[in-house]
Amino acid sequence: MIDVHVHETGTRDGLQSVPFFVPTDVKKRWCSAEARAGVAEIEVCSFVPVKLLPQFADAAEVVEHALTLEGLTVAALAPNLKGTERAIELGVHKVNFVLSVSESHNRANVRRSTAESVSEFARIVELARSLPEGRRPKIAAGLSTALGCTIEGDVPEARVREIAMQLVAAGADELIVCDTVGYANPTVVRRLFRAIRSDVGAIPIKAHFHDTRGLGLANVLAALDADIRAFDASLGGLGGCPYAPGASGNICTEDLVFMLESMGLKTGVDLEKLIALRAEIQEALKGEPFHGTIAKAGLPKGFLKAA
Amino acid sequence: MIDVHVHETGTRDGLQSVPFFVPTDVKKRWCSAEARAGVAEIEVCSFVPVKLLPQFADAAEVVEHALTLEGLTVAALAPNLKGTERAIELGVHKVNFVLSVSESHNRANVRRSTAESVSEFARIVELARSLPEGRRPKIAAGLSTALGCTIEGDVPEARVREIAMQLVAAGADELIVCDTVGYANPTVVRRLFRAIRSDVGAIPIKAHFHDTRGLGLANVLAALDADIRAFDASLGGLGGCPYAPGASGNICTEDLVFMLESMGLKTGVDLEKLIALRAEIQEALKGEPFHGTIAKAGLPKGFLKAA
Repeated sequence: MIDVHVHETGTRDGLQSVPFFVPTDVKKRWCSAEARAGVAEIEVCSFVPVKLLPQFADAAEVVEHALTLEGLTVAALAPNLKGTERAIELGVHKVNFVLSVSESHNRANVRRSTAESVSEFARIVELARSLPEGRRPKIAAGLSTALGCTIEGDVPEARVREIAMQLVAAGADELIVCDTVGYANPTVVRRLFRAIRSDVGAIPIKAHFHDTRGLGLANVLAALDADIRAFDASLGGLGGCPYAPGASGNICTEDLVFMLESMGLKTGVDLEKLIALRAEIQEALKGEPFHGTIAKAGLPKGFLKAA
Repeated sequence: MIDVHVHETGTRDGLQSVPFFVPTDVKKRWCSAEARAGVAEIEVCSFVPVKLLPQFADAAEVVEHALTLEGLTVAALAPNLKGTERAIELGVHKVNFVLSVSESHNRANVRRSTAESVSEFARIVELARSLPEGRRPKIAAGLSTALGCTIEGDVPEARVREIAMQLVAAGADELIVCDTVGYANPTVVRRLFRAIRSDVGAIPIKAHFHDTRGLGLANVLAALDADIRAFDASLGGLGGCPYAPGASGNICTEDLVFMLESMGLKTGVDLEKLIALRAEIQEALKGEPFHGTIAKAGLPKGFLKAA
């Protein structure tokens, strides 16, 4: 029985900011080992134009490999219909569409207004629904900059809630509420996630936090208080931000699992396997800064026995 | 109006693990600048035998300087009566006595049983009460390893509560509940702090968290939920642990202030001054690893305007 779902996004959000091409073989080993460690869902790549993100030139091969891993939900990011078509063709289980709640961030990212992206999302849902049930992926809707924006600063809660409801109305199977730039704090997290939950009813809501300003795990705790039970995280906190050298990126998968398990919340993830994998991937990504503490400090005495 | 009290302990708990003598002048500048930044209480040194901790050979000079800083509460750590006598002689405002709740940790640290340390604490309170009111310092009682012990592992909650009540019965003006080795998690923090609060009534309780395993700020959030409104922290997270190379130490003062202020909780601390001081002290302690994120990532757009 799983109390909290931990999803790996390092293979997408992490690798996205690594400035050199990571060999396909490393990506495959990463997916295999995480699945073996008990991570039930991985965002394995991004379907964006190769000239924009050459890191994902091997997306098809990575997806094909991930689909062979038993029990794993294979997710992929797609910012538009074209990327979704490729993802669906390859047979991913879930497409994570993403738009920015903040208008200027969305324009900077995909050269569209947020409203245009919502319409694009409706077309994506339509495409998915036109498929026979066995080939129909889940369509998740990611709300980027939902907790703040480097261009606009604060993002009004009312706007986040409105876009969330539009995405649900368009047919989202799941919402992913993202603190893309690490601006969130626990007070706002509790309020926003409770509000969205009460707006959208029973639809699954996942939190995607960055630890850029050190509040990542405190924000997870706040989201748990708002009954959120699914989180994205990145092995070694890989991710970062090109505008903040040395700053950390996504919350660390291994630190997140440690916090949840220490709180008595079952994740189904084998922490020792995860820590071993971290060392392996860190070596494979020579020079890339890894973050996080549990791998350095070690588990508390008696921890695994108790867990 | 201050919502949450942030006390600096880097000058004591931080410097304690720095392997070279830090010049007295640096310590004085540190205290002055923190006081100017609005930190209202600093644990400026430790009164322990110089041969055990040569770092604090200049304790008297540092205390004398700190006492000239307007509005600052000057605290010093003392593990026994002898150290307390020296601290009182110099006129500190507060003595932070400390014992370990875990029997073996206490023996390893001060070669006494915990019960003997409680008796020593009673003698310290007696000494303080024998002084005329103007010269009588506050006597705080620190419960080290209250949330876990590297030797014993789990520390039973019942024992922590019992020792806390003994210290209050002996006359403590304040309790400092310490996660000395970074074993705490938010679930245990909420439960333990609520229990102690209900046991001891209105006496001030401060939390002293380490970020060794990344849960420092999440534990602060949990303690806030238990109505704790005072926290120790260390500039740049200075502290560490000799048994965990590269691991972080105390929670970071600047990250703590950032979290609290971002949540709308007033600390009275000027975050920009604190971040500037961090850079200065880091340079003065060449080679010592500093932790924390806000200094690297920068404040969110619009943050200071909003605060």
